[in-house]
Amino acid sequence: MFKRYLLAPGPTPVPPEVLLSMAMPIIHHRSPDFLPVLDSAKKGLQWLFQTKNDVLILASTGTGGMVGSVNNFFNAGDKVLVVNGGKFGERWTKICQAYGLKDIEGLGKVIRNYPDTLFIVDAISALVAQDIRTDEWGIDILVGGSQKGLMLPPGLAFVSVSEKAWKKNETSKMPKFYFNFKKERENLAKNQTNFTSAVTLIIGLNEAIKLLQKEGLENVFKRHARLADATRGAVRALGLGLYSKESPSNSVTAIEMPAGIDGQEVYKTLREKYGITGAGGQDRAKGKIYRLAHLGYADTFDVITGIAALEMTLKGMGANIELGKGVAKAQELLMK
Amino acid sequence: MFKRYLLAPGPTPVPPEVLLSMAMPIIHHRSPDFLPVLDSAKKGLQWLFQTKNDVLILASTGTGGMVGSVNNFFNAGDKVLVVNGGKFGERWTKICQAYGLKDIEGLGKVIRNYPDTLFIVDAISALVAQDIRTDEWGIDILVGGSQKGLMLPPGLAFVSVSEKAWKKNETSKMPKFYFNFKKERENLAKNQTNFTSAVTLIIGLNEAIKLLQKEGLENVFKRHARLADATRGAVRALGLGLYSKESPSNSVTAIEMPAGIDGQEVYKTLREKYGITGAGGQDRAKGKIYRLAHLGYADTFDVITGIAALEMTLKGMGANIELGKGVAKAQELLMK
Amino acid sequence: MFKRYLLAPGPTPVPPEVLLSMAMPIIHHRSPDFLPVLDSAKKGLQWLFQTKNDVLILASTGTGGMVGSVNNFFNAGDKVLVVNGGKFGERWTKICQAYGLKDIEGLGKVIRNYPDTLFIVDAISALVAQDIRTDEWGIDILVGGSQKGLMLPPGLAFVSVSEKAWKKNETSKMPKFYFNFKKERENLAKNQTNFTSAVTLIIGLNEAIKLLQKEGLENVFKRHARLADATRGAVRALGLGLYSKESPSNSVTAIEMPAGIDGQEVYKTLREKYGITGAGGQDRAKGKIYRLAHLGYADTFDVITGIAALEMTLKGMGANIELGKGVAKAQELLMK
Amino acid sequence: MFKRYLLAPGPTPVPPEVLLSMAMPIIHHRSPDFLPVLDSAKKGLQWLFQTKNDVLILASTGTGGMVGSVNNFFNAGDKVLVVNGGKFGERWTKICQAYGLKDIEGLGKVIRNYPDTLFIVDAISALVAQDIRTDEWGIDILVGGSQKGLMLPPGLAFVSVSEKAWKKNETSKMPKFYFNFKKERENLAKNQTNFTSAVTLIIGLNEAIKLLQKEGLENVFKRHARLADATRGAVRALGLGLYSKESPSNSVTAIEMPAGIDGQEVYKTLREKYGITGAGGQDRAKGKIYRLAHLGYADTFDVITGIAALEMTLKGMGANIELGKGVAKAQELLMK
Repeated sequence: MFKRYLLAPGPTPVPPEVLLSMAMPIIHHRSPDFLPVLDSAKKGLQWLFQTKNDVLILASTGTGGMVGSVNNFFNAGDKVLVVNGGKFGERWTKICQAYGLKDIEGLGKVIRNYPDTLFIVDAISALVAQDIRTDEWGIDILVGGSQKGLMLPPGLAFVSVSEKAWKKNETSKMPKFYFNFKKERENLAKNQTNFTSAVTLIIGLNEAIKLLQKEGLENVFKRHARLADATRGAVRALGLGLYSKESPSNSVTAIEMPAGIDGQEVYKTLREKYGITGAGGQDRAKGKIYRLAHLGYADTFDVITGIAALEMTLKGMGANIELGKGVAKAQELLMK
Repeated sequence: MFKRYLLAPGPTPVPPEVLLSMAMPIIHHRSPDFLPVLDSAKKGLQWLFQTKNDVLILASTGTGGMVGSVNNFFNAGDKVLVVNGGKFGERWTKICQAYGLKDIEGLGKVIRNYPDTLFIVDAISALVAQDIRTDEWGIDILVGGSQKGLMLPPGLAFVSVSEKAWKKNETSKMPKFYFNFKKERENLAKNQTNFTSAVTLIIGLNEAIKLLQKEGLENVFKRHARLADATRGAVRALGLGLYSKESPSNSVTAIEMPAGIDGQEVYKTLREKYGITGAGGQDRAKGKIYRLAHLGYADTFDVITGIAALEMTLKGMGANIELGKGVAKAQELLMK
Repeated sequence: MFKRYLLAPGPTPVPPEVLLSMAMPIIHHRSPDFLPVLDSAKKGLQWLFQTKNDVLILASTGTGGMVGSVNNFFNAGDKVLVVNGGKFGERWTKICQAYGLKDIEGLGKVIRNYPDTLFIVDAISALVAQDIRTDEWGIDILVGGSQKGLMLPPGLAFVSVSEKAWKKNETSKMPKFYFNFKKERENLAKNQTNFTSAVTLIIGLNEAIKLLQKEGLENVFKRHARLADATRGAVRALGLGLYSKESPSNSVTAIEMPAGIDGQEVYKTLREKYGITGAGGQDRAKGKIYRLAHLGYADTFDVITGIAALEMTLKGMGANIELGKGVAKAQELLMK
Repeated sequence: MFKRYLLAPGPTPVPPEVLLSMAMPIIHHRSPDFLPVLDSAKKGLQWLFQTKNDVLILASTGTGGMVGSVNNFFNAGDKVLVVNGGKFGERWTKICQAYGLKDIEGLGKVIRNYPDTLFIVDAISALVAQDIRTDEWGIDILVGGSQKGLMLPPGLAFVSVSEKAWKKNETSKMPKFYFNFKKERENLAKNQTNFTSAVTLIIGLNEAIKLLQKEGLENVFKRHARLADATRGAVRALGLGLYSKESPSNSVTAIEMPAGIDGQEVYKTLREKYGITGAGGQDRAKGKIYRLAHLGYADTFDVITGIAALEMTLKGMGANIELGKGVAKAQELLMK
């Protein structure tokens, strides 16, 4: 009876309502049964993305949504400005390179007023945790995935596409077949997808959106901010550093490990001794950090559990940690 | 996304493996499909009860097992010695009264050597949490229920019956029909129950026993002792009293509320503000205590969650509580 | 991939909606979560029973409801008139005998106007399949169970009790504890049950009633009549006899086996070769009949499947059966 | 209580064991929990594909596997021989066109001995229903999907790749990112996938393969042959034509509609009046045929149900159909 807790930044835990909605007998994606399902998913995503744009639903991971965005709106030789925000920012760069786009690494937003320039945002990790106002902010392409804040298993990508982007799509000559957004758009208008719909995941999507709508979008963002804030407060109270000092994410907290403590060992001990699956660092952060997510189906005692387990693990590994100190800070912040 | 935690002494949380095993298409209790299911349940219960006696499986709550024990082994006018161990000890007394048995309230065990005397133990709350050695200790009747340590929904009672008790059954003239143990025994030998079997619950029972067997009976008891010990340690560290001072249960910890704090309000706040459903006190303990269970499908972070939430609740109600102090003690004890 | 079909008169197949509703995390029967659940079950049962009377919900099989009805409304020595309608009618007789009631076997309805006489109906098998108007017909006690027309697993009994019956309950001196209807009534008024509620089954009950309400009570009865009629038509078309000639049930069709064909072998072959679990005959009908149910979660192609499989089985056993003939008649009747 | 039956050639019904295996709490694809899951899936697919080659597992529909096969083994300008076997053969052609490959439509197998030539088979619809011996027949690329014979929801593609194909992969310069088979192969060796694994579908895949292995591969093919044979026999007995005269599929039977009967109306009536979702014809066959699948989780009474419903529908629409005639033929063939 060794209980397991998933506190990683994706896949995140799936609520039982969503898991069970996907255990109903399957329905056919080209039958009238499915039309209201897709119609509801379409509208639910527009609500979540805060947009009137079409939100395409693709049977792929979030990366597929990113690949498709490159395939459908560019031509070889186009210049691309990538704001590199961590691991997945790097992936954008690699995708662009794979399809022959010239990269200019840098910082800053792609400006709205340039008629030929698209503002593309990878919201795979931030969606649901962060208030992203697609239309208000003039985001042309917003890419999301199922297995993060949306509390679903992996297997769906979502891409919202502005009218400005659809214009640019007309001139894109890159070869494309699986990620053909124009055909997806035509199908979406008929409450279909271009290829076989990932029926069960879309049914789960509706259930997940229903849960988010019941809570209210503003409350969803507040909850994530509250959990992230408590986690960061607890980390600081323990004398540990935050890896992302200036604009830490509300999805996941990257915690710097004390000197002499290997983050990979922390990951392993938390899993094997305490049943907690968080995440270690990647690439150059490997071994230096440990990441606790507070994303999607997460609440007060997920934070308490994560912090308490981290305290026990670090103390057990010989770090100078006072048990309960981080928890106390989290409790104080979560009581508000 | 307000998460709920069930930390009450029954029903207790049901593991997903068990919940899903009961969601398979139903099978017929008089068909060959069901014979191996009941056979497995029968043997699994003997393992859990540590007995070679028959363990009857009744479609009722645990109370039905108690009622049946009175109906099947006594006659009106018989003298009964009841060791009153709390709420359910009182229920025994009431059952005996209802069926016209003369009560002698007192303390102490019914001695094994008296040929006409049966040693009956109500293990509804203790089963799984406590090492109860039916055969070794000479227990004639042991009564258990599904919704406590066995991690199942309510609806099944279990009664192990010794040969000595079966002898006494022959002379019992009390009217009985639904709880006719002799007929249950005859049916059990054929891997059936006397009336329609509660098929899905028995399938869930097999799954629950499989989980306990994988853990090992000794480890199951150790886990419960460890969780109970950590809970009691945390309670003391917070300066709160334990309601049962001398032999506290490994199933549930009854915590005395500080002066001026109403246990019913604590119950209510824990539920409404923190999503924790523990239990208040009953009868004369009402309002004076709050009960946190660590029973069945329970592990380290259920204790942490329960204690952290209790700290936050009591502090929020104005009690003199230092946040994290109980948690720290629980962490220390649970790290061992 | 040998598919199984349950066409027995109880347990009957449970719809996936109901199975999955019972796979959600369990809730506590004494917590505010459960009050609306029981309230809804209470009202749903009144709708189904066509009554304003209380309908008690007991954690037992249907037989428990029958036993309780005897325990709560009679005294030893009372005279009882039993209309023996098959196997379960016999069970009433045995229950009455067990509790010392004098039996008078006979036929006819207990008349409404006798002030001291209760009209008790065992509707365990008929409920949902047959229009039973509790209040209109002046039924004092109506007993139902979960695993028949209600499409639930076994483990719940339902008993509706009229005001006239509650009067009689005041004078009943039979010992009772588990089936204490007065206490159940007091608890029901508070949306509780006297002992631990069979929480998951009651949640499933609400889901099952929701399905029936969506269909509409009249349509439910019509559907059962239509399926029963098609089954009987098919049986006659095959030249087989109906065991119950005058008032065959809409729940199940008992089919007389051709000369030289053993009904028990038919049962066995249908199960092992075709995956169909119907029911054989009981007691003196054993071997002479085979029973196909069309009860609860049943529709057109359950009848077709049952008849087609029976044809194949009988022909395979050497009976003079023309394949497809019964099916054709069923199709004709079901097309209407 | 209007029951629904899915008799379409994909998605096909998902067995309850598989549905429920996917309803367990999700696990992390980069954690040790997932390694044995992917390892088991990998080996299970090799068993099913009858190959020692790697079988890649992609988070996409089957079409993604086809697109990836084009992306990873060819260069623009390559000549491609497509054997056009229906709708999906046409899709191959379109994919090749989209990526700039020159098409030569024709018939016949691509010969094994040509060192530069790959033998690619689209087995999306045939897998499980048909004996496809990858290694024995020298198939270089075999593409399958989850939602057909494998009895899973849509969302996974499978591609087995021979050593000869891997050689060719080294010279392929087509841009690729999401479907990068070389990277998938490197990850597969570590029991991972290149991008986030579709965890729940892969867990379901293991459960589905377990069911197929329990039945035995030869028995699986025999079952499909038996069901297809009975369906075709029934169709002929009804005087209807088979659309594919020479080598009809064991996955699905395309039935020519009688003169004056619109196949689309047949589809609609079967769905709305009888709850059967089969499939109409596509493109030039639209309106002329109706398709009944017998694929994956299918057995004797799925055929009976499909044929009986078709008879009732056609007769109801005025066709010259004798009820029960097709069923009788199917029964006769299925009794063997």
